[in-house]
Amino acid sequence: MNRTELINQIKTKKNFLCVGLDPDIEKIPSFLIDEEDPIYSFNTKIIDATAPYCVAFKPNTAFYEAYGLSGITSLEKTLKYIKTNYPTHLLIADAKRGDIGNTSTMYAKAFFKRLNCDAITVAPYMGSDSIKPFLQFEGKWAIVLGLTSNEGSADFQQQKINDKYFYLNVIETCASWGTKENMMFVVGATKANMLDAIRKIVPEHFLLVPGVGAQGGSLQDVCKHGLTKDIGLLVNSSRGIIYASNQKDFAEKAAEEAKKMADEMSQYI
Amino acid sequence: MNRTELINQIKTKKNFLCVGLDPDIEKIPSFLIDEEDPIYSFNTKIIDATAPYCVAFKPNTAFYEAYGLSGITSLEKTLKYIKTNYPTHLLIADAKRGDIGNTSTMYAKAFFKRLNCDAITVAPYMGSDSIKPFLQFEGKWAIVLGLTSNEGSADFQQQKINDKYFYLNVIETCASWGTKENMMFVVGATKANMLDAIRKIVPEHFLLVPGVGAQGGSLQDVCKHGLTKDIGLLVNSSRGIIYASNQKDFAEKAAEEAKKMADEMSQYI
Repeated sequence: MNRTELINQIKTKKNFLCVGLDPDIEKIPSFLIDEEDPIYSFNTKIIDATAPYCVAFKPNTAFYEAYGLSGITSLEKTLKYIKTNYPTHLLIADAKRGDIGNTSTMYAKAFFKRLNCDAITVAPYMGSDSIKPFLQFEGKWAIVLGLTSNEGSADFQQQKINDKYFYLNVIETCASWGTKENMMFVVGATKANMLDAIRKIVPEHFLLVPGVGAQGGSLQDVCKHGLTKDIGLLVNSSRGIIYASNQKDFAEKAAEEAKKMADEMSQYI
Repeated sequence: MNRTELINQIKTKKNFLCVGLDPDIEKIPSFLIDEEDPIYSFNTKIIDATAPYCVAFKPNTAFYEAYGLSGITSLEKTLKYIKTNYPTHLLIADAKRGDIGNTSTMYAKAFFKRLNCDAITVAPYMGSDSIKPFLQFEGKWAIVLGLTSNEGSADFQQQKINDKYFYLNVIETCASWGTKENMMFVVGATKANMLDAIRKIVPEHFLLVPGVGAQGGSLQDVCKHGLTKDIGLLVNSSRGIIYASNQKDFAEKAAEEAKKMADEMSQYI
């Protein structure tokens, strides 16, 4: 999905919500456990319920890899389900990959070609040859970890180098390797005020913003500091939506939470 | 495998070689392709042939994940084969993972408990809560990317902050979260002279050194700058060993290359 298509989707649906599909077998409704593939069952119901209120889905691959072969099976089925049934939703593999050039090329082919994802999150520590292979595919996106929403982002990302935060340096350098058509950045919503400095560096790039909701970030603040004329934001919520209930009404409640966020977003568009 | 056991293995076998299992279906001998699981067949033959000349095996998970379910199956079978047949070899999952705390905990359980690996490589960009979960398992290791052997390491790792390279900062900070009993660092052999500064910061930690052989690093230089009284090094070679031949004699040739490195190492111990 290219940038124009993404912006059109956002403007048509009047939201820029990304639903994070992070299924934890200990948190999904217990009555699903006896199904053949509980995680896939859970996901498809969440996807169907929330699709009208979001423009993107983002499975975090860790939640699937943790369960080995059965988890990978659930992941691949989930990716296929989204691509088949919701082809106009941006499909993001939250895999945080980063390796030497040849290896990143293998990952890029796996996620973009074989699994048909639109985007993948990548870690910047290993530098240019770890990221550039993800920029070689028309209509596909590398989403670089810039400023993450976790506590540990203070350790390196928020160190100052000559009075400039390291994450700004990372975003600026990585942006020079790609374009606003093939690169986005992860920017945690718990640091909304830091968006001003980021927007000076990447005024037009899309930012993928986790941390709204369960992690404490405010949608209003994110929009105030991050919105552009082309929107330029994808705001992710995982736990706040998918675990809104663990009863029979879990999909319905997830839809309610997604709709609540989408409704708030529509005010800012 | 704890530190004492690892050091004993190295001293008994008189080498500190790690064989990287990075199987590429386009590079393995063509006569293996018709087997039920060509990658597993390739791996087991390489493992059997090289085990006498190494103390560790390191599958790079990317090479398996790229093939989807069949690749993950090959990986899990390979890990099990090593643990069953060569329990005194250190088993390293080269996965370069790094995510927020809860997610890293899931990865740690998956690699250490379910897959029974001894060690996993981790990326430091997301900071403490992305790494600490890997330090909670007795006899298991987090191997933090410090200075990698690829070209892109120049982009961020080798930036200077107040006259100090960023990778030194990363190694120093990460070292404070763990001990020499549960943490190692990846330090590329193509930068052997940089080992002096690293050894000032982590005089006793084990370093996992890729880049010797195919990537141009010199074993002699690495030993000169990196060896400690407890050895303190694991030197990895992947392509130089596993692709020494793509004919019927591939395992034999791999053993020859491994033996050559092990023999050189024995001089330095």
